[in-house]
Amino acid sequence: MQREGRDFGRNEPVLASFYHASILNHDSFAAALSFHIAAKLGCDSVPAMLIRDVFHEAFASDGAILQAAAADICAHYDRDPACDHYGMPFLYFKGFQAIQAYRIAHWLWQQGRESMALFMQNRIASVFDVDIHPAATIGCGVMVDHATGVVIGETAVVGNNVSMLHSVTLGGCGRSPGRRHPTIGDGVLISAGAKVLGKIDVGEGAKIAAGSVVLIDVAPHTTVAGVPARQVGVPSVSQPALDMDQNIGN
Amino acid sequence: MQREGRDFGRNEPVLASFYHASILNHDSFAAALSFHIAAKLGCDSVPAMLIRDVFHEAFASDGAILQAAAADICAHYDRDPACDHYGMPFLYFKGFQAIQAYRIAHWLWQQGRESMALFMQNRIASVFDVDIHPAATIGCGVMVDHATGVVIGETAVVGNNVSMLHSVTLGGCGRSPGRRHPTIGDGVLISAGAKVLGKIDVGEGAKIAAGSVVLIDVAPHTTVAGVPARQVGVPSVSQPALDMDQNIGN
Amino acid sequence: MQREGRDFGRNEPVLASFYHASILNHDSFAAALSFHIAAKLGCDSVPAMLIRDVFHEAFASDGAILQAAAADICAHYDRDPACDHYGMPFLYFKGFQAIQAYRIAHWLWQQGRESMALFMQNRIASVFDVDIHPAATIGCGVMVDHATGVVIGETAVVGNNVSMLHSVTLGGCGRSPGRRHPTIGDGVLISAGAKVLGKIDVGEGAKIAAGSVVLIDVAPHTTVAGVPARQVGVPSVSQPALDMDQNIGN
Amino acid sequence: MQREGRDFGRNEPVLASFYHASILNHDSFAAALSFHIAAKLGCDSVPAMLIRDVFHEAFASDGAILQAAAADICAHYDRDPACDHYGMPFLYFKGFQAIQAYRIAHWLWQQGRESMALFMQNRIASVFDVDIHPAATIGCGVMVDHATGVVIGETAVVGNNVSMLHSVTLGGCGRSPGRRHPTIGDGVLISAGAKVLGKIDVGEGAKIAAGSVVLIDVAPHTTVAGVPARQVGVPSVSQPALDMDQNIGN
Amino acid sequence: MQREGRDFGRNEPVLASFYHASILNHDSFAAALSFHIAAKLGCDSVPAMLIRDVFHEAFASDGAILQAAAADICAHYDRDPACDHYGMPFLYFKGFQAIQAYRIAHWLWQQGRESMALFMQNRIASVFDVDIHPAATIGCGVMVDHATGVVIGETAVVGNNVSMLHSVTLGGCGRSPGRRHPTIGDGVLISAGAKVLGKIDVGEGAKIAAGSVVLIDVAPHTTVAGVPARQVGVPSVSQPALDMDQNIGN
Amino acid sequence: MQREGRDFGRNEPVLASFYHASILNHDSFAAALSFHIAAKLGCDSVPAMLIRDVFHEAFASDGAILQAAAADICAHYDRDPACDHYGMPFLYFKGFQAIQAYRIAHWLWQQGRESMALFMQNRIASVFDVDIHPAATIGCGVMVDHATGVVIGETAVVGNNVSMLHSVTLGGCGRSPGRRHPTIGDGVLISAGAKVLGKIDVGEGAKIAAGSVVLIDVAPHTTVAGVPARQVGVPSVSQPALDMDQNIGN
Repeated sequence: MQREGRDFGRNEPVLASFYHASILNHDSFAAALSFHIAAKLGCDSVPAMLIRDVFHEAFASDGAILQAAAADICAHYDRDPACDHYGMPFLYFKGFQAIQAYRIAHWLWQQGRESMALFMQNRIASVFDVDIHPAATIGCGVMVDHATGVVIGETAVVGNNVSMLHSVTLGGCGRSPGRRHPTIGDGVLISAGAKVLGKIDVGEGAKIAAGSVVLIDVAPHTTVAGVPARQVGVPSVSQPALDMDQNIGN
Repeated sequence: MQREGRDFGRNEPVLASFYHASILNHDSFAAALSFHIAAKLGCDSVPAMLIRDVFHEAFASDGAILQAAAADICAHYDRDPACDHYGMPFLYFKGFQAIQAYRIAHWLWQQGRESMALFMQNRIASVFDVDIHPAATIGCGVMVDHATGVVIGETAVVGNNVSMLHSVTLGGCGRSPGRRHPTIGDGVLISAGAKVLGKIDVGEGAKIAAGSVVLIDVAPHTTVAGVPARQVGVPSVSQPALDMDQNIGN
Repeated sequence: MQREGRDFGRNEPVLASFYHASILNHDSFAAALSFHIAAKLGCDSVPAMLIRDVFHEAFASDGAILQAAAADICAHYDRDPACDHYGMPFLYFKGFQAIQAYRIAHWLWQQGRESMALFMQNRIASVFDVDIHPAATIGCGVMVDHATGVVIGETAVVGNNVSMLHSVTLGGCGRSPGRRHPTIGDGVLISAGAKVLGKIDVGEGAKIAAGSVVLIDVAPHTTVAGVPARQVGVPSVSQPALDMDQNIGN
Repeated sequence: MQREGRDFGRNEPVLASFYHASILNHDSFAAALSFHIAAKLGCDSVPAMLIRDVFHEAFASDGAILQAAAADICAHYDRDPACDHYGMPFLYFKGFQAIQAYRIAHWLWQQGRESMALFMQNRIASVFDVDIHPAATIGCGVMVDHATGVVIGETAVVGNNVSMLHSVTLGGCGRSPGRRHPTIGDGVLISAGAKVLGKIDVGEGAKIAAGSVVLIDVAPHTTVAGVPARQVGVPSVSQPALDMDQNIGN
Repeated sequence: MQREGRDFGRNEPVLASFYHASILNHDSFAAALSFHIAAKLGCDSVPAMLIRDVFHEAFASDGAILQAAAADICAHYDRDPACDHYGMPFLYFKGFQAIQAYRIAHWLWQQGRESMALFMQNRIASVFDVDIHPAATIGCGVMVDHATGVVIGETAVVGNNVSMLHSVTLGGCGRSPGRRHPTIGDGVLISAGAKVLGKIDVGEGAKIAAGSVVLIDVAPHTTVAGVPARQVGVPSVSQPALDMDQNIGN
Repeated sequence: MQREGRDFGRNEPVLASFYHASILNHDSFAAALSFHIAAKLGCDSVPAMLIRDVFHEAFASDGAILQAAAADICAHYDRDPACDHYGMPFLYFKGFQAIQAYRIAHWLWQQGRESMALFMQNRIASVFDVDIHPAATIGCGVMVDHATGVVIGETAVVGNNVSMLHSVTLGGCGRSPGRRHPTIGDGVLISAGAKVLGKIDVGEGAKIAAGSVVLIDVAPHTTVAGVPARQVGVPSVSQPALDMDQNIGN
């Protein structure tokens, strides 16, 4: 990523310091990540430097956060044909950035620092247009493509190697406390605008078609579509998330 | 709300002044609300202090604006299980904040100050990702949850105690002037991503399923779903908005 | 537009300098457009003045960019009944502003300045909530109404006089390089929330209903609806984009 | 001042909203003054709106603050030949602005709010380059011309109708607590760069030449000059502050 | 200067974009100068882009402004041993930057745009701590070293190749309209903190010692010192401004 | 200092987060100092977070920087009767803040990072109105009171336990490279506005009166005054800097 930054900087000197500040200046991925995301989340009420300190606390306390970030970068690089540099999700993709910020909010929530976690949730929703409750659980190797309008609720669980697109909702049903959001298995692909609602399970390797509204469990390795969604086939691969084929037939 | 602010401030001192500035410093709900929302809407072209003055003009001219705001806070507290403090919608929820800003834009429109009203509409759309025409009419006790992508058109009318989720559209059909947007009855629930289009009536207590596209009138106390939407049942309660159950069956 | 600005400024002196800076101060449409959009895109990493210089480079190099902008303003004025001044899209409409910024990003991409183009794409997505790949091709006389959540992919092609609404997606299918996004013919209307996915053709004068998911070719002058979308009729006019009637029947 | 603002705004539309926001928009001098000075003092740590609230508290608690401000404006208008509008000190003169901000800091100090007063002192020193301890006592009808580098210590007392120029110091001698700064009588003129140091009295109507260092009492209606300063004559008028003649002979 | 910028950028990549934005990105000295100074003068009331447009108007109207700027850069490079690159005054020296901004304010004043000129004067005083009335006349090849606290009054005239240091005042005496400030001949050196007051002439090649207060005419090629200043010798060179020797004896 | 911060925060909740961010949030003096000063020096070109990283590099590389900062705080606390908390210089005094920023610029200069050092010099001059060349050498236990207008040149040397006031200049004479600025011994007091110019020595324990212009060596433990300065007595204490008595007689 550092090598890419140098190449970019040479070609477009207007951006040289942006690349430098974001990537080249840091001797570790942790320093670069905390700098770049905190700069976006900072505001008058809580300046970027304070938010960056929270990132460093979280990184020091839980090494898995950085590993998940690295896996998420690879997910974009491997699955998105428009992404031909490792630096692109890091620098430019709202979905990647929102997920990394969520990971910090989630860590705060786990530490019992709920008000700081809610503050972060609000900043993520304002800056990246992605609303993830800090209590939600999200695996690694996750790609949230384009990202605008994604909503993930308080008791939702998202497995590893999941891909979802903009306007996807993992929403709740009703007002009862306790679990009221979906659980998404590993390798699932949730296409643009799909709504998955309530205390249901989406099995591993399933595919949810764009614009679908899913209100009941989805069996593993099946494709569902429609409003409300019904099974329409089976995916041609075991992990549709890696394939990014939003077509229903495959 | 002041007591909550003090508790939050003690637990998370990074946010102490944020809570203080937003809530504790003010001797009235009006002062706190105008401060907090104007701080978000302010920009280089029109600083927050000027926008705050407009809020105070509106509050002084029409007492119902503040009463509606209080009812909206209660709506979130009562209907959203993730909202366990009265201060949460006030501080953090884009939907609540967008509606309060709309109420000021609507008052400006009623005063004949159309250009200032349009400026506010643009700021609300930029800051909260919610696009409400200032001429639209919206009741009180309204909850717009998550909020990103909501669009409400010029001649739309929304009753009291309505709940809607992100990506809901109350849109127009055609180019003819005059009424061309829907009227939503009291207590209606419009689930995530539903589009309600054209000069139609949605009767009180109706429920519109997620992702539906509603092009014809909906009878009171019925549930509609699909693209285009058709009646699929009746809600289990008289005001589905209070229940927030996005399931179709109930 | 200059006359409108003077009228607005007299009626609402809070906005007088905003109108002046945005419209009245400039002796050409190019100067006003570059000022207004660059002011929105500027950020700490790349200040507005540098972005404005890029706009001027592009205008000088390709005269069609400004002609397209003028055609887009007329598209809003002619098709949107809530738009009764030429200055409104210019000053306030996120969709118009995002398209003009895209035109610069596209010019950068054509010049081989990919990193600057990607930077612009990110700024457009952050500021206007519209994600258009700079390699996409978009005609003139285009209206993107409300705009939040629109996504247009790398190999998409959009003809002239197209109208689309918020949350519309022209998305890709799969990971293979080469063409993987739709081609939209002249005069097409794509209603709110519709997803058009994959290497397909939407014929000229077609209409896509709100919330539809289109996965196969659409014949010219037909109306499609549903998830997945099927033909449900024919539009009552030859260019539905000009009519903005989101109803299915017409 | 309002009439001036309208004239200026017509001639220089770039500044129209600046004039409007600063002067025309407010129905009282208090509202205009608090808006304009708070906008300058606001910073990330304490936003302008909060500072403005402090101004309003002070104005409400002590009516003399606004009367002094009005007298200070007249002082500039009467004594400064380069000031031909009442609005000029209000809008543009750092010395006038610094004194008004000091009056609020002084009120805070009197209320026992020392930390807020010290915060204001720091902001005034940063923004206007004028360092006045909030415990100092300053009369009304005071002009601080050009202002950069003025320092007024904790136990200093400045009478009414005093004029002083940039780089003037009313400084302390030694470390003992209690009075250790000068007392300046009514109508005194202190020319550019003069330092008046220690627990001494400068009698009413005295004149202190530019660049002088005054270490001993100055008799009323005498002119002193030099390093250290000695009596060199008597002023030709009873209140040299009104005359602004920095010459030694007169 | 462009070559210097590239070297600097390579050595200190944190600053690469700063150099690029300020120097390298521009195909002309005019573009670089307007960018860099306008970026400093911009504020919420009048954004940098508008100020830059004023710079370009002035440059286009009066070619001597840019020639004077070039001569001022050379003055710093030739006279200041701490300045070993042409880019240093341009990038870093408040005195150079203040003088260039004054030249624009002066041009505005000459055009009859007094309110814009006064606005600029206030911005220059706030940003650079240098207070120059826009009606003052200043030659070219002028160096204002360190600059903080310099004051130059309305009817002052400064010749070519003058050097002055921080805290120098060219001030007025009295309240009568018409000329009331000094005229400074070519090649004069005014050392740190000197005050030159009233309608007097300082002859060409004169030297004014640090901290002096000059109240009467100074003959050409003489050295004056003291409070008040008296002749103490003759400079060892014909243009003391070029030599920067603040010693009295030479 | 942490205890003070908590007390202040309780008394003035508007400032609670300011105290928290500046002092309480940090587990070390280094973290608090870097946060607070970097927040002031940050600008669009180089954000505060990057400057803070430079502070941390310097602290890690040279432990004496933090020790000097601690000694400077004690200097203010011991010598300034208006300073009754250790936190005051840290939070509010421009002189203290400028010196700490200079120490980082000096470290950069020593590392051969001249362009970054010059950038810092410019930021210090802009933010604190204090112009110190990064090559100058300054001891510890130094107090620069009020600070506006202080200038310290490239080859100046300042000993330990020195006190100086605002508008003091340690300036150069002539254009020859090599040493051309003064050397100030330990314990010297330089009163307000004094100019010390050229390659001269000011002996330890000397006192320079306010407004003096010093052009020749000053013997240890003597008091000098006047323009030009001559010996007028001997200080009553061995280190006048600790006593802060600006009177000439003692």
